[in-house]
Amino acid sequence: MSKGLHTKRIITDNEGFKKVVDIESSRKIGLPNGFVIARDLKQIQPGNFFEIKGKRYYVLSCDLYEYVMSKLKRRTQIIYPKDIGYILIKLDISPGKRIGEAGTGSGALTIFFSRAVGKEGRVYTYEKRKDFIELIQRNLAGGREFENVVLYNRAVEEGIHEKELDAFFLDLKEPWEVLDIVAEALKPDGYLGVLVPTTNQISQTLKTLENLNFLISEVVEIMIREYKLNADRFRPNDIMVGHTGYLIFARKLEG
Amino acid sequence: MSKGLHTKRIITDNEGFKKVVDIESSRKIGLPNGFVIARDLKQIQPGNFFEIKGKRYYVLSCDLYEYVMSKLKRRTQIIYPKDIGYILIKLDISPGKRIGEAGTGSGALTIFFSRAVGKEGRVYTYEKRKDFIELIQRNLAGGREFENVVLYNRAVEEGIHEKELDAFFLDLKEPWEVLDIVAEALKPDGYLGVLVPTTNQISQTLKTLENLNFLISEVVEIMIREYKLNADRFRPNDIMVGHTGYLIFARKLEG
Amino acid sequence: MSKGLHTKRIITDNEGFKKVVDIESSRKIGLPNGFVIARDLKQIQPGNFFEIKGKRYYVLSCDLYEYVMSKLKRRTQIIYPKDIGYILIKLDISPGKRIGEAGTGSGALTIFFSRAVGKEGRVYTYEKRKDFIELIQRNLAGGREFENVVLYNRAVEEGIHEKELDAFFLDLKEPWEVLDIVAEALKPDGYLGVLVPTTNQISQTLKTLENLNFLISEVVEIMIREYKLNADRFRPNDIMVGHTGYLIFARKLEG
Amino acid sequence: MSKGLHTKRIITDNEGFKKVVDIESSRKIGLPNGFVIARDLKQIQPGNFFEIKGKRYYVLSCDLYEYVMSKLKRRTQIIYPKDIGYILIKLDISPGKRIGEAGTGSGALTIFFSRAVGKEGRVYTYEKRKDFIELIQRNLAGGREFENVVLYNRAVEEGIHEKELDAFFLDLKEPWEVLDIVAEALKPDGYLGVLVPTTNQISQTLKTLENLNFLISEVVEIMIREYKLNADRFRPNDIMVGHTGYLIFARKLEG
Repeated sequence: MSKGLHTKRIITDNEGFKKVVDIESSRKIGLPNGFVIARDLKQIQPGNFFEIKGKRYYVLSCDLYEYVMSKLKRRTQIIYPKDIGYILIKLDISPGKRIGEAGTGSGALTIFFSRAVGKEGRVYTYEKRKDFIELIQRNLAGGREFENVVLYNRAVEEGIHEKELDAFFLDLKEPWEVLDIVAEALKPDGYLGVLVPTTNQISQTLKTLENLNFLISEVVEIMIREYKLNADRFRPNDIMVGHTGYLIFARKLEG
Repeated sequence: MSKGLHTKRIITDNEGFKKVVDIESSRKIGLPNGFVIARDLKQIQPGNFFEIKGKRYYVLSCDLYEYVMSKLKRRTQIIYPKDIGYILIKLDISPGKRIGEAGTGSGALTIFFSRAVGKEGRVYTYEKRKDFIELIQRNLAGGREFENVVLYNRAVEEGIHEKELDAFFLDLKEPWEVLDIVAEALKPDGYLGVLVPTTNQISQTLKTLENLNFLISEVVEIMIREYKLNADRFRPNDIMVGHTGYLIFARKLEG
Repeated sequence: MSKGLHTKRIITDNEGFKKVVDIESSRKIGLPNGFVIARDLKQIQPGNFFEIKGKRYYVLSCDLYEYVMSKLKRRTQIIYPKDIGYILIKLDISPGKRIGEAGTGSGALTIFFSRAVGKEGRVYTYEKRKDFIELIQRNLAGGREFENVVLYNRAVEEGIHEKELDAFFLDLKEPWEVLDIVAEALKPDGYLGVLVPTTNQISQTLKTLENLNFLISEVVEIMIREYKLNADRFRPNDIMVGHTGYLIFARKLEG
Repeated sequence: MSKGLHTKRIITDNEGFKKVVDIESSRKIGLPNGFVIARDLKQIQPGNFFEIKGKRYYVLSCDLYEYVMSKLKRRTQIIYPKDIGYILIKLDISPGKRIGEAGTGSGALTIFFSRAVGKEGRVYTYEKRKDFIELIQRNLAGGREFENVVLYNRAVEEGIHEKELDAFFLDLKEPWEVLDIVAEALKPDGYLGVLVPTTNQISQTLKTLENLNFLISEVVEIMIREYKLNADRFRPNDIMVGHTGYLIFARKLEG
């Protein structure tokens, strides 16, 4: 099992080739003009390069962004960094907080929650699909920096073990079915975040939230537009991600 | 001087009225149908409400998002949460890291950096304008959760005191003028982020980065689209923010 | 009553002041540093300028875009040029065609349909609100170039007089209620366009179209992003239109 | 050589298969579950269907949108309908007008200009590349409805034959090089449109326009967002076109 980010490196030729590799492994890494053995990269200080037939390959340390985008094993659509960054801010995730999540999916958001709450915080994450659990454990082990994640193989419909959570995030097909259960697990004043891909799901979630004791703060989409890295011919990429999901944010009220 | 977020509350009627107030103050807070004395809100547990002539006002704890958006005194265009969230991820800001920043501006990003690096991390922020310093100190005092920010009244052109920084963020008119100085302050493998509002500035920054030892990773725009909170008539807001700035990300190479 | 576009002029100082005026009128036109009598502009050839206290004002002929954006009297949200241009193409509007429309609203789209079908084409437009009719007549008279519009004060629910129309456009609150009536008025192979502002309306329209004999071709949003006219500081406007409406296009099938 | 749109048909199974075919041809048309001979479609009235092994295929008349998107032979990036619709409106293209264009490219915009000016209008289009001319002629022949296009194999740098044109559109790499020549061909008050893909080209074009006698009216981008045709799971497409080009619009001033 993987031992976290510090055993990983990014190799790039700065011309389109980029790969995340594990330097504990003895695998051959295919390069555009040859190969390298993964563990040989241990000798190279991150930020430096090696050469193959005169061609330079840079070795960089692997960060959470790269890990989540390139290395995470996926069985579901992951939540993207453009959305994760905004979720962290809107749920006011900070060191020491106790956060709940369902479903875990591939664990991308879980890892970022784990980092943001730090060693004194906790992330309680619920995934009902048994066949996802092993994958999630592997993904978490590879990217997590703190021992602060509790993973349950359980549907939140069956109850949430925690009380007085600071925030809860839902990435489920029918989030409206569990909002009352989530409300009980949240402290008054606590934060709720929901991700859904369709407008029908938003309508249904908003309706349910109105009937429960929540103050809806916003529904948004975050879009990212990438540009070509050409100073003299600066322009957006021809193709962009058109949609990942809509985000709903609310806060729990008392009484 | 303000004593951080825990002395602040949000008052909202959930119908468009929202105000952030300091419960250490004895000020009268104007409400749509009356007023309340700020310090009287101390009695109300966040998440609860009070009533004036039968109308409900909810009291919520104030988070960094609300503080930055509603309460920060501004002399400059602030960096927005949609951008801040993505910056935190792309610069791999995490507990314990040492981050540099210039210029500080109103301190919005500084406060989020401070939170993300936690008590063992450090944020070194440079602002050359003397008349901004007091404002920044007040803004930081009101929102900061950790004593981990070092504020310099100094232009980075005159030199950066630190070495081996994990990341550096630039929000300056002519960032290309200081990229060589920033490169010296960064550790190899370290992260650079730049915010500029115009495409001409991007072209100039990209050209300078190509000549220095940086690996440019991306140029992006983050856009946020807000929707009306109406389940039966779901639609985007009529007006949206069209532009805040372009973000450039790069990593420092060795040698 | 106004006599068409040729009696109208745009006055602009190229620094933010712009006004559309009628040169048949004897009104005083307020300018940033004085005034001018509208009919005196008859002497000035479009493309030329006049001066007031050394300041230049350009006089331009008025086109349909300017007329619709600045001069049209509105009682409803108008359909915007960004949407109109795409509608004209997707409905394959061309000289000689016979087009239906409901509701007419302020007549913005009607005028563009009128232009595009030319003198041998026809536009049949239905508006149920009696209090809109006079306004529409005035708007049409001011912008129309051809005598090819038939305006009915009638709800399409009560029946459409025409058969074998080439295309039909709906800008109604509940378009799904009249789709069967519209289908009867269209020729087989004919085009249907629908504008609705909310996602709930789209879902309902799509469901109804699936049950009628239509081939749905697309649902789209057209967004326009405006940039500041500054060559050295090129950047998007700070604020943009976030939403006007969603467009649905379909074609009628036989049997 | 093709004889216009009326000899073309769209075949679609309404499940992703769509093809534009010429019913003068005796070619076999491959279908998902068999084939059909193109000229046999002559028997089928547009809007009707035929069946192969119980599967329905609809036959629709081919419109300009489909022709340009599916059938036009391309040697260049074409201008897209989302942009064409807006260009037609902003250049005030209408029946009887005389329009100039350079370069012709694949002729997509030329065909729409041809339709919009009708039989009494004229489109004068300049393409300097000799190897494009035959392709353009074939494309025009296949889509044009009026005999109103004059195609020159000539660079506009060598001079424009016409004077007093109502509008001129430029789709060239260095439009700023020919703006003075275009200005001479336009009537005072006439319209200029320019398409460029990069921000550097915009800056250069704006600078040149400021020095010539033009009133710059706007620089915009038109974006189209497509949605999935699912009433119960309504959401945008995952991928969208991120960029085609920026549009600059201006009007010629006198003296």
